[in-house]
Amino acid sequence: MAEVSRRSALFGGVGLVGGALGGALAMRGAQAPSPDPGSAPGEGGGAPWAGVGQAVETFYGANQGGIATVPQARLALVAFDLLAGASRSTLVRIMRIWTDDAARLTRGAPGLTDTEPELATVPARLTVTVGYGPGVFEAAGLQARRPEWLAPLPPFSVDRLEEGWCGGDLVLQICADDEVTVAHAVRVLVKEVRELAQVRWVQRGFRRGMGTQALGTTMRNLMGQVDGTVQPDVAGVDVGLLWAGPGPRSGTGWLEGGTSLVVRRIRLELDTWDELDRPAREQVVGRRLADGAPLTGTAEHDDPDLEAVNTLGFPVIDVAAHIRRSRSEKPGERFLRRGYNYDEPPGAGVPGSSGLVFVTFQADPVAQLVPIQQRLAEMDLLNTWTTPIGSAVFAVPPGCQEGEYLGHGLFG
Amino acid sequence: MAEVSRRSALFGGVGLVGGALGGALAMRGAQAPSPDPGSAPGEGGGAPWAGVGQAVETFYGANQGGIATVPQARLALVAFDLLAGASRSTLVRIMRIWTDDAARLTRGAPGLTDTEPELATVPARLTVTVGYGPGVFEAAGLQARRPEWLAPLPPFSVDRLEEGWCGGDLVLQICADDEVTVAHAVRVLVKEVRELAQVRWVQRGFRRGMGTQALGTTMRNLMGQVDGTVQPDVAGVDVGLLWAGPGPRSGTGWLEGGTSLVVRRIRLELDTWDELDRPAREQVVGRRLADGAPLTGTAEHDDPDLEAVNTLGFPVIDVAAHIRRSRSEKPGERFLRRGYNYDEPPGAGVPGSSGLVFVTFQADPVAQLVPIQQRLAEMDLLNTWTTPIGSAVFAVPPGCQEGEYLGHGLFG
Ligand code: HEM
Ligand code: HEM
Repeated sequence: MAEVSRRSALFGGVGLVGGALGGALAMRGAQAPSPDPGSAPGEGGGAPWAGVGQAVETFYGANQGGIATVPQARLALVAFDLLAGASRSTLVRIMRIWTDDAARLTRGAPGLTDTEPELATVPARLTVTVGYGPGVFEAAGLQARRPEWLAPLPPFSVDRLEEGWCGGDLVLQICADDEVTVAHAVRVLVKEVRELAQVRWVQRGFRRGMGTQALGTTMRNLMGQVDGTVQPDVAGVDVGLLWAGPGPRSGTGWLEGGTSLVVRRIRLELDTWDELDRPAREQVVGRRLADGAPLTGTAEHDDPDLEAVNTLGFPVIDVAAHIRRSRSEKPGERFLRRGYNYDEPPGAGVPGSSGLVFVTFQADPVAQLVPIQQRLAEMDLLNTWTTPIGSAVFAVPPGCQEGEYLGHGLFG
Repeated sequence: MAEVSRRSALFGGVGLVGGALGGALAMRGAQAPSPDPGSAPGEGGGAPWAGVGQAVETFYGANQGGIATVPQARLALVAFDLLAGASRSTLVRIMRIWTDDAARLTRGAPGLTDTEPELATVPARLTVTVGYGPGVFEAAGLQARRPEWLAPLPPFSVDRLEEGWCGGDLVLQICADDEVTVAHAVRVLVKEVRELAQVRWVQRGFRRGMGTQALGTTMRNLMGQVDGTVQPDVAGVDVGLLWAGPGPRSGTGWLEGGTSLVVRRIRLELDTWDELDRPAREQVVGRRLADGAPLTGTAEHDDPDLEAVNTLGFPVIDVAAHIRRSRSEKPGERFLRRGYNYDEPPGAGVPGSSGLVFVTFQADPVAQLVPIQQRLAEMDLLNTWTTPIGSAVFAVPPGCQEGEYLGHGLFG
């Protein structure tokens, strides 16, 4: 995302695949499959060109995967409600199970009690990211360690929230470049805890598949816009915007190296959007549809000139354009966007519904995200064609080392 | 499917990609993107390693695509009901629109009135396959040309059909190796005819992504079984099992070069399936889970020995095993299986549901498929864990040449 080398060749040649893939995905230490020039192409999953399937994201580490990870093609976000009577020890049990299974599945090994082990053989950069809703701190009797910001976002005037897409005590973000891998991981992780927690909602999402486009190409949403261009440099100078520090706002230290996950389910009103002509659609965002360049520039990554005016003296980028409104003068009001498209099919008289599973990561959502969402709610040309229908906030614990479990610093 | 070279390397190296991909996908004349060694990797969609995205399945030809085509990673099957008052000329209009748009989209060009043209730039082997339900012949006043076999399948004792997954006047089968491509094609093709036909149901499906496994690897279903091993050789000696001839059973000739599409939506009872131990699960099908080899053999493509008995004198492959029951002594009772997994997430107290969008193609479903489905309904160990919940039959017209529209031989 932020620092992907746009010149890395994913499939540069048999002998290079390990190196090229490794380089391209090095952002968070992804391991490319070791090239095996001895085996004939087409024989077995380890053949070099099966690189997309055999690429592994390291599970253990200071931070969890699936956050600074180059976005995989597929997302499943699964929220759970704890069952009545859940306690701190329930949570430790869930965390031990998920940690163990996530460590296995992400390296292409079956879960501990996996009944379909053959479906686990294609890791495809699988990441499993665990997050805690407010209910976890209540159930565990750990309210004192709950980050101050961990609560539902305040209501915004644009919200049309549906209960079924909101909240949750726990969340799993499961991403991979292959849908069978995601489906299998979801099943294993849900099944293993079904006596302890029940699924509240599931949001599936997608981007272009790995290998269909140049690595590092910014995704497009279903409005056709280039979406995800401007991001904080979370691997560099903006690292503090992403990962929580030791301070008390994060719950007295246990969250250091963790972050927060905000998910907004935002429906797109594509039918009316499609009635706008292209210049009008470009005005709404302030960027060109063809290449995502700002209306004042020529290339996607050009800085927009918010002061520029046209011959009539009007701003080239409208005062209510999305990129003007979503940008703050305060450098702390930024966050990592890692969203996916969703597309629910129509049927039986019910119209289909498309949108964004808008996922962001930031050290402190109240300080970084809420002011921007508030600005957008007040004025944003995009609001006519977008409707937030779901909202949830989770605290994402740091990563762990082998032998530890996720959240040990909180529950242990 | 049948004749994919299992030794073709999909990403054999920059200079070879055109050739290797072209060779591997040559079954129905797929065109690999032309390698362009002059352009730097990572710049633009035509870079050699973006092969998965730029690979094209030829639209025009004697047969429609998406049938003998090496199965793409993703499926959307969209059934439509004609609106009241639809006539022959309505159908000609729909066919002209769909033919024109399918020809464009499959080569990576936007639809005629495409409002999101940038989403059309990654063909990813897109195919669009059109089929007609019985209602088309009624609406067009062409009952005399309706193939004799074109009617809902007879009821089977195992059926628990839900109306919402059955029937339809028209069907579009949309397949590609990328989900954004599929979502965009569905939207364009549905939108273009919304004054003429409304969506009845949509079935999405998936297999492993292109590039995650050796090309030619047989898919696995969500029970973990290798599924799709034994297929008629439709590119060779069994060609007559797939494509309709000129005879009267096919509706007096217009269907020559066409076929039939049967879709059964089959739910899997995974929770109880997972309670069986592995030997029992292998008995149910008659093949090993690890590699799909028959219980009497050692490799996936070994012929099962249905006569073999164990030391106790019992058949090694159970008398009710799925591969025994689904195999007929009559060589004409075979068909091409081209199914996909489906996996609907659980949520809000509703359990999830997984299964197969079981799609078959055959010249005559009543002669080829119905006897097998009848045998299975009578006795098949698999029945305890599988439930047909949807069923539909469509006549699939032959392909067309540039300047013609699909179905011109019927409506023209
Ligand atoms: C469905 C709803 C939305 C759509 C379709 C959308 C689309 C876009 C697009 C096309 C851009 C320009 C390219 C880029 O830098 O990514 C953009 C930028 C941005 N959006 Fe959104 N957006 C949506 C909702 C939101 C929401 C809810 C927020 C915040 C709460 C947000 C925050 C941002 C930010 C921070 C930027 C970068 C602004 C800059 O510094 O240039 N967006 N969005
Ligand atoms: C969810 C339901 C089903 C599942 C999970 C399933 C699974 C399988 C598996 C694992 C095999 C063995 C490997 C192979 O050759 O593909 C197989 C073979 C086969 N199945 Fe099914 N099947 C299902 C339903 C059906 C139905 C409804 C039919 C026909 C109406 C059918 C027809 C066949 C045939 C013809 C074969 C090949 C038999 C042979 O000649 O060896 N299957 N199936």
